[in-house]
Amino acid sequence: MIVTAAFMRRVAEVAAAETLPRFRRNGAVANKYAQGFDPVTEADREAEQAIRRLIRAEFPGHGILGEEHGLENEASALRWIIDPIDGTRSFISGMPLWGTLVGLTERGDAIAGMMSQPFTGEFFFAADGQSTYEGPGGTRSLSTRDTADLADATLCTTTPALFSGRQREIYDALEGRVRLARYGTDCYAYAMLAAGNIDLVVETRLQPYDIVALVPIIEMAGGVITAWDGGPAENGGDIVAAATPQLHEAARKVLRG
Amino acid sequence: MIVTAAFMRRVAEVAAAETLPRFRRNGAVANKYAQGFDPVTEADREAEQAIRRLIRAEFPGHGILGEEHGLENEASALRWIIDPIDGTRSFISGMPLWGTLVGLTERGDAIAGMMSQPFTGEFFFAADGQSTYEGPGGTRSLSTRDTADLADATLCTTTPALFSGRQREIYDALEGRVRLARYGTDCYAYAMLAAGNIDLVVETRLQPYDIVALVPIIEMAGGVITAWDGGPAENGGDIVAAATPQLHEAARKVLRG
Repeated sequence: MIVTAAFMRRVAEVAAAETLPRFRRNGAVANKYAQGFDPVTEADREAEQAIRRLIRAEFPGHGILGEEHGLENEASALRWIIDPIDGTRSFISGMPLWGTLVGLTERGDAIAGMMSQPFTGEFFFAADGQSTYEGPGGTRSLSTRDTADLADATLCTTTPALFSGRQREIYDALEGRVRLARYGTDCYAYAMLAAGNIDLVVETRLQPYDIVALVPIIEMAGGVITAWDGGPAENGGDIVAAATPQLHEAARKVLRG
Repeated sequence: MIVTAAFMRRVAEVAAAETLPRFRRNGAVANKYAQGFDPVTEADREAEQAIRRLIRAEFPGHGILGEEHGLENEASALRWIIDPIDGTRSFISGMPLWGTLVGLTERGDAIAGMMSQPFTGEFFFAADGQSTYEGPGGTRSLSTRDTADLADATLCTTTPALFSGRQREIYDALEGRVRLARYGTDCYAYAMLAAGNIDLVVETRLQPYDIVALVPIIEMAGGVITAWDGGPAENGGDIVAAATPQLHEAARKVLRG
């Protein structure tokens, strides 16, 4: 395999060196957009630069796409996708549910991915058909649970407020069918899905860098992740991730409206 | 002072010995109510028993009230209030935002409190006018930030779905006035308020054991916590906690409807 857990651990470490000292330090928050609230901290920008330097040194010529600093080596079939801090709202609120996401795609397919939460010391990594966890609970292989019915499922989403109009009605219908819904969980929700603690994540208007790293972590743990229309999750947009193919299909049936 | 950080650390430890091994183990979840979803795990019951044993041994004759096992020594002026796992929905979803809450009241006033999150290794403790933090970020004294206006505030609540009818309209009005709203944060929100990472927590229908331990942590960090109507937070019910008296008053103005 091109990418090893050891390399991804180094990636997580250089990112953590930029993010962690700034977590809960109430640092300056710049707004990317004049209206609305989309904070990007110094941590975000510095972590992405650190990750890019490491990837460039190890894999010269590979493509790199990041949330903060755009695309380089566009022509490469192999492309790294970086979100230095997924869950900036968690980050600025002191909640340890944000993560550093780094994925690797080959001609658009996610083939390896990493999610790191440095405050809790958790590291989720997938490649070569294996999804693994390292953290306070030890090291173990990840697998989703066997939930097949919506009535038994725990659902996570960032916030229902992100769905509007008809999409909100559809989301609410889905939420009405599940056992438990949780909000504000960011990338951590996908990690908990891979780890067998929750069953379903439904989100809208994601960017590729929000999701690419998480695709292998879920798929290699036995889960299914696609767009609502069944298309590849790697493109972002409206995403549904489920613990089993049956649950994924049951959710998609509702999401078709 | 009656209660020391050292004793509360022991309380946190005996609780963690029961909760942590069962966290993310997908153990049996019993429903307290036939309808709805109010999970109580074995961890919850065992942790409370362990905490009660420790308090009884150290402070024989003190009153003890817990979520799971009721009230003992009702006549004592000093009463310990225990919620072994606040945030059971976080607990069963693998999210490290739940906590063990233990507070001490004297004739109904909260005079000391502790919140422990054993997965992250965080310990929030308040007594004798001091609110302190111990955790991965080191040990430090807690203080709320100086946010005075709703427009600058980050607001947390369990979920807007808990507010209904007129109360939901009022909550929505408040959420419309703040900078950022976050859901699903359980007792962790109050800890982050004390630590200066968020500014406002608004909740409804709390039990005393959900809030008593958090009252000194917030007040001794410089925050204000009361019922929506300005009454003592120790009784539970509808709660508003704020970083500053000005912000508390601004929030209450909206909450008066």
